Amino acid sequence: MRTKQGTIVPIKPKRPPAADSVVARLTPRLRIVFGESLRLGPGKIDLLEAIGRTGSISAAGRELGMSYRRAWVLVDAVNRMFTQPAVTTAAGGVQGGGAQLTAFGQALVIAYRRIEARTLAAIQEEMAPFDGDIVPD
Amino acid sequence: MRTKQGTIVPIKPKRPPAADSVVARLTPRLRIVFGESLRLGPGKIDLLEAIGRTGSISAAGRELGMSYRRAWVLVDAVNRMFTQPAVTTAAGGVQGGGAQLTAFGQALVIAYRRIEARTLAAIQEEMAPFDGDIVPD
Repeated sequence: MRTKQGTIVPIKPKRPPAADSVVARLTPRLRIVFGESLRLGPGKIDLLEAIGRTGSISAAGRELGMSYRRAWVLVDAVNRMFTQPAVTTAAGGVQGGGAQLTAFGQALVIAYRRIEARTLAAIQEEMAPFDGDIVPD
Repeated sequence: MRTKQGTIVPIKPKRPPAADSVVARLTPRLRIVFGESLRLGPGKIDLLEAIGRTGSISAAGRELGMSYRRAWVLVDAVNRMFTQPAVTTAAGGVQGGGAQLTAFGQALVIAYRRIEARTLAAIQEEMAPFDGDIVPD
């Protein structure tokens, strides 16, 4: 939740499950559906984060076990979903000019992670009554 | 949110987006990850709901464009995730004895739909600042 001052307060379930409960281990896997074939999910968001860390599409892809081509296609798909780029690249040099996660891209990652955290809180609260009924994996 | 009396109050975003905004058309696609290969997502939940409506695994599968075998595999997977069955079947007769969504299965569907509604509210609130930046599909 954002306070009135705009600072970010961590999102936690109102009634957090006991650490040894099965529900405490449940996690969300979430895609935001923008249209027929346009989705924003963990693959693209993990990649944006890795580009922010490494400054490189190929290094980010490698970190995630993705080919350069696959990483490039995902970055291109995100950039086409918005009127502003999430990632910019600079040409030049033997190793290319690197890539940068823009302020817009950073804001997008933060928004997705906040949605994911709120979904996790919802899962742990709404699934709490089923804790004793879940067969551990 | 559940009131103290246990009645269900619809979940809405605190600041609902304008009906003509792009963000108002964003939706979640959510799987709850129970373990390595155990997930509960829209496919299984839609199927449980359809079984509740039709009283039949094959009719429910047909409604969702799924083979009987596929529908049966999904029902079996859900039943194995919990210590109580979400769907029970009765043998017998030429057309089989039908299938029933148990009270446990109904509670599971309601919990999933509540998590989904809370995720939708989170998407619409957290993505609102990006409304003007989304390229419509």
